[in-house]
Amino acid sequence: MPEFSPGLEGVVAAETAVSEVDGANGRLIYRGGYLIEELAPVASYEETAYLLWNGELPDKTELDALRSQMAAARRLKASARGAMSALDPQTDPMDTLRTAVSAQGSAKAITTPTLEEAIGLTAIFPTIVATSHRRAKGIEPIEPRDDLGHAANLLWMIEGKEASAERVHWLDTYLVLLADHGLNASTFTARVIASTGSDLTSCVVGAIGALKGPAHGGATLAARTMLDKIGSVDNVEAWMQKAHEEHRRFAGFGHRVYRTYDPRAKILRELAQTAAPDLYRLAAPTEEVALRILHEAHPERPNATNVDFWASVVLTGVGIPKELFTCVFATSRVAGWTAHVLESLADLRIIRPASVWKGPQPGTKPLPLGKR
Amino acid sequence: MPEFSPGLEGVVAAETAVSEVDGANGRLIYRGGYLIEELAPVASYEETAYLLWNGELPDKTELDALRSQMAAARRLKASARGAMSALDPQTDPMDTLRTAVSAQGSAKAITTPTLEEAIGLTAIFPTIVATSHRRAKGIEPIEPRDDLGHAANLLWMIEGKEASAERVHWLDTYLVLLADHGLNASTFTARVIASTGSDLTSCVVGAIGALKGPAHGGATLAARTMLDKIGSVDNVEAWMQKAHEEHRRFAGFGHRVYRTYDPRAKILRELAQTAAPDLYRLAAPTEEVALRILHEAHPERPNATNVDFWASVVLTGVGIPKELFTCVFATSRVAGWTAHVLESLADLRIIRPASVWKGPQPGTKPLPLGKR
Repeated sequence: MPEFSPGLEGVVAAETAVSEVDGANGRLIYRGGYLIEELAPVASYEETAYLLWNGELPDKTELDALRSQMAAARRLKASARGAMSALDPQTDPMDTLRTAVSAQGSAKAITTPTLEEAIGLTAIFPTIVATSHRRAKGIEPIEPRDDLGHAANLLWMIEGKEASAERVHWLDTYLVLLADHGLNASTFTARVIASTGSDLTSCVVGAIGALKGPAHGGATLAARTMLDKIGSVDNVEAWMQKAHEEHRRFAGFGHRVYRTYDPRAKILRELAQTAAPDLYRLAAPTEEVALRILHEAHPERPNATNVDFWASVVLTGVGIPKELFTCVFATSRVAGWTAHVLESLADLRIIRPASVWKGPQPGTKPLPLGKR
Repeated sequence: MPEFSPGLEGVVAAETAVSEVDGANGRLIYRGGYLIEELAPVASYEETAYLLWNGELPDKTELDALRSQMAAARRLKASARGAMSALDPQTDPMDTLRTAVSAQGSAKAITTPTLEEAIGLTAIFPTIVATSHRRAKGIEPIEPRDDLGHAANLLWMIEGKEASAERVHWLDTYLVLLADHGLNASTFTARVIASTGSDLTSCVVGAIGALKGPAHGGATLAARTMLDKIGSVDNVEAWMQKAHEEHRRFAGFGHRVYRTYDPRAKILRELAQTAAPDLYRLAAPTEEVALRILHEAHPERPNATNVDFWASVVLTGVGIPKELFTCVFATSRVAGWTAHVLESLADLRIIRPASVWKGPQPGTKPLPLGKR
């Protein structure tokens, strides 16, 4: 029996051409061999999703076709609409997303995942996220707009008015950056579910549940909450020192794979200066102090800023309410989840690892007298 | 980078004391060190669930307390009731289960999994399964009965009348046998989701999605469908030979871990003689022919009958409609899923495996001209 690697660290669980996290060199490579820093300035979320699904960037005709197909799939079915109405409006928006996606994708018979389903599921996320938000605020949900892109339509549906081109661009860049990231826990969840021959909705619903965790997608909100608690530049040093003394983790620092600065964090940090100048003025010294304290405590660790830290600043600048941060992360990552599932179909083998028995051997404890 | 093991075969992904599949010796050990063949004749499903959750079999007081707690948690919340009403009555019952459990467990804030939540989720499955069935048949769902055990209440809610003690006993035995099975794909899914710090409902909803796959929980229905297609004893030899020549897999044969006869299949085979004598008379020669053909084709493989084959016969004898087989499997396994999640909390580390990059290296393909 091989050695136990907690968290499956370093264990290869798939061969993939969807994306590669080259942690040692601080590179994120998207399908086709594109570095994230090459792609992000030129590609929209729709182009990125097309690339992850198809392996090639779309030409104009292909992109127009995808945009139309996504726009046409933005409406809630009666199943999802009814399921959302049945939930308390104050429900955690990730629970609403999990339930509504499950309802939207429910079917009479099991189907093998298709690209069309991937497009449909990706297209419906903004509608669910915005509807959930407006219900929580006690305001009437609004219908999606077919003439807007993915990012612009999300802001339209949340706010009920058209967002500036600048804010749409910032959100679109965020969505491109977060769309895939190797075998992260939610993507791996989707692949495990797919490995049993299950349907695409089941894979995506499971992945939503994994992303919800504070050690995964929930970390963006945690980073923002930390910045809110620090509150002002004057308070950074004292707050961080106290948190460190109390052995509380700094939200937004450290990563399983990266050994250098996360390339997505680098792009978002730059964007944050324009998108959220006020919060940037607090976040930049916070980062500096965090890295210094972490380096002093653990000089042997890489201790780099991760994507969640600067994502929380950029999403704030975009105007996304912080309780939606994890949902907006899911709105991006669903392209990656579905691309991985579609890729895995080519060589489907059930993912069924082994375990080590820690319990007593048979015969150790007598059975209580039987009831029958 | 270590070698890639497709399906994570032989890769240790957890240390556990919940259950152990000793494939080489054909043993299934439940928590506390009890062999499944010792436990099944004397323990009810509630006792088994208590054992998996707590590590000890309950005494009378503890069992009574659990039964009361489960009975009190059998009613749908408005969220789950509403979500189910919004689904087409002909929806795949596993999709209904996935959606209704997600709605039932939705909350205003994320919580760390608790035993109380595990009990509540386990208690609600029969209500959802039976309600889904009655909606599909166009008959009014009926309320759960507090005075019945878990198995008896499920039959009551499906059929609207009390089942015989014999049928309740058969179902209860099935539920005990299927309640846990090491790191099977759905349990592993639950543990991956839990590893991010997510909530128990998210873990269970993901596991439902994994169990749905035909290579996992869907196999019981596939075995029954195969028997239905064979139709009569006279047809066994010809049907199986033809299926083999057409390279179709025999449903209910082969297992990743067992190298001998599955101990659960052995118990269910014996039970099937009493529970479903007619179908047994078709299933027994089918098993014989299947094993002979498989042995001739692959003498080097173990080629054993798996639990799904005989489970399909026993569930037929119990009177469970075949479209509910996978849901009834889930109704049993939820005890194992939740026990694994609760166990994993003691040493939570995000499950984030590595992957091997199959795509082109950066710089291979030029980026199309940017849009911005």
